[in-house]
Amino acid sequence: MKIEVAIGIDIGGTNTVIGVVDREGNILAETSTPTLTNTDINNYLNTLTSKINETVFHLNGTIEVKGIGIGAPSSNYYTGEIVGASNLGWGDRVPFVKLMKEFYDYPVIVLTNDANSAAVGEMMYGAAKGMNDFIMLTLGTGVGSGIVANGKLILGHDGFAGELGHVIIDPNGRECGCGRKGCLETYASATGICRTASELIATTKTESKLRNVPALNFTSKMIYDAAVKGDELALKAFEITGKMLGKAIADFVTFSSPEAVFLFGGLAMAGDYIFTPTREAMEENMCFLYSNKVKLLPSKLDGAKIAILGASAVVWQEMKN
Amino acid sequence: MKIEVAIGIDIGGTNTVIGVVDREGNILAETSTPTLTNTDINNYLNTLTSKINETVFHLNGTIEVKGIGIGAPSSNYYTGEIVGASNLGWGDRVPFVKLMKEFYDYPVIVLTNDANSAAVGEMMYGAAKGMNDFIMLTLGTGVGSGIVANGKLILGHDGFAGELGHVIIDPNGRECGCGRKGCLETYASATGICRTASELIATTKTESKLRNVPALNFTSKMIYDAAVKGDELALKAFEITGKMLGKAIADFVTFSSPEAVFLFGGLAMAGDYIFTPTREAMEENMCFLYSNKVKLLPSKLDGAKIAILGASAVVWQEMKN
Repeated sequence: MKIEVAIGIDIGGTNTVIGVVDREGNILAETSTPTLTNTDINNYLNTLTSKINETVFHLNGTIEVKGIGIGAPSSNYYTGEIVGASNLGWGDRVPFVKLMKEFYDYPVIVLTNDANSAAVGEMMYGAAKGMNDFIMLTLGTGVGSGIVANGKLILGHDGFAGELGHVIIDPNGRECGCGRKGCLETYASATGICRTASELIATTKTESKLRNVPALNFTSKMIYDAAVKGDELALKAFEITGKMLGKAIADFVTFSSPEAVFLFGGLAMAGDYIFTPTREAMEENMCFLYSNKVKLLPSKLDGAKIAILGASAVVWQEMKN
Repeated sequence: MKIEVAIGIDIGGTNTVIGVVDREGNILAETSTPTLTNTDINNYLNTLTSKINETVFHLNGTIEVKGIGIGAPSSNYYTGEIVGASNLGWGDRVPFVKLMKEFYDYPVIVLTNDANSAAVGEMMYGAAKGMNDFIMLTLGTGVGSGIVANGKLILGHDGFAGELGHVIIDPNGRECGCGRKGCLETYASATGICRTASELIATTKTESKLRNVPALNFTSKMIYDAAVKGDELALKAFEITGKMLGKAIADFVTFSSPEAVFLFGGLAMAGDYIFTPTREAMEENMCFLYSNKVKLLPSKLDGAKIAILGASAVVWQEMKN
């Protein structure tokens, strides 16, 4: 019997990664191809589909492809288009799904929000298996989110649901890339913890090795390493970050009453340094209805593979509907 | 051909209201019976089911009952139980759905959150017909909410989703009944606007007829009537209330990117006095992704009938699944 697989594709600004993934989340094959930008889209599609076909061919008849899930910037799940992705240069409006369907008979789906596909990946392959209601928070350069309720990803009427990084947690707070102030991601992301370290350098007299590093060079990994060595300022930075994040989660819970909230991404790798203060603040700020009911958990997916895992998982989710 | 109907039941502390509702939301019959509290639950069930049967009987064979939806305090959608409803006195744990199913063959559903059934009512009979993603906010004594995503009510893993009245909008704000501070409902409810009027009396020198009324006697209707007559303090109270509500909605939108947010209940009856400042603050505080995309609308359901309409609507929603 053939193994059912979904093809997960992640279109980045430079490279496109392709993975062939089974229902358990095993990656049976993986390859990549340059993302041909500023060219006729058909050039890129020919390269991409050749690469897909070649990869499938090498699996030698052992698999049955059930669909293709694609993570692409500025794409729209409902229309299947990529709209004005400034750095791709394929024109203003590319009907990507329609074009791909000229090559393939099975379902093709695009999703723009990484955290959305990460959520579906966690549900299909990871720690959210069997859960119908949970929230995935990705703590990277920004804060992304994917929300699952009634066993389905919430996409919203236009596909833009799940931007919890842009909930305002301090109206007089830090400037955000979105043009407003005090968004969650200015605190609870890898960038956010660096800003918190800078703030602590300015506002406290706490000694720290970080004082010897220009703020521009800060990374969340550097702050983590300092914390592990007992650097008080770094420890304080994690505590503050967790506090902000936990308070925000306490509010998110009132929306969908999830069984669990998952943390994923660079900052989540800091383990107890981020989980402990986040969990404490979450419980401390939670409405009694939800007290001690919501799990705060790390993602079980391989961070390096999340893009193709997530994209492929969307195919299985789609088949359920 | 017989008319398909759902029976909507609202169990209040004193009375139980029963309505027979068709798919369009027409109430074909309505009746009520005392809620027999502090007694053997079977006494109440015998009275209730007799009343239901009598009502159905009087419709003289023209209808076909498809199910019963029940709004009951402290009930659990998933287990069908009423758990420790302190003012009913039926014991700690009543398997209400199971007991009702001994009388009826068709589906019986319980829901505890009024705003949840109001949301389903709006979707089945009202202004949210055809919408898959929207939020219902009920602005009564408190603030309730019902959230629909992917065409389904979000209940959460335990049935407690949709408590947006308990999102904290000012951590140092007003004391809330839930034991915390600054919950949305301490500002954006009928009670909240009364507290805002009291605050304005204390903090401003604005002249107002409301200064002649003890705070304990304030009602949102009184503040509305004053606003209509041009009372500046009352107008300011609406402006502040809308501002708080609009800011909160701007954050809610990041969660589920709804097509519309509906306002329902006493405070929503104030029309432009509440809608205008709310809409302004919502747009002003919204992340650019959602700007000018989300409608703020009044509910189209009859406020006096919402309990039975909402409860009956849950039957149609359940049949869709």
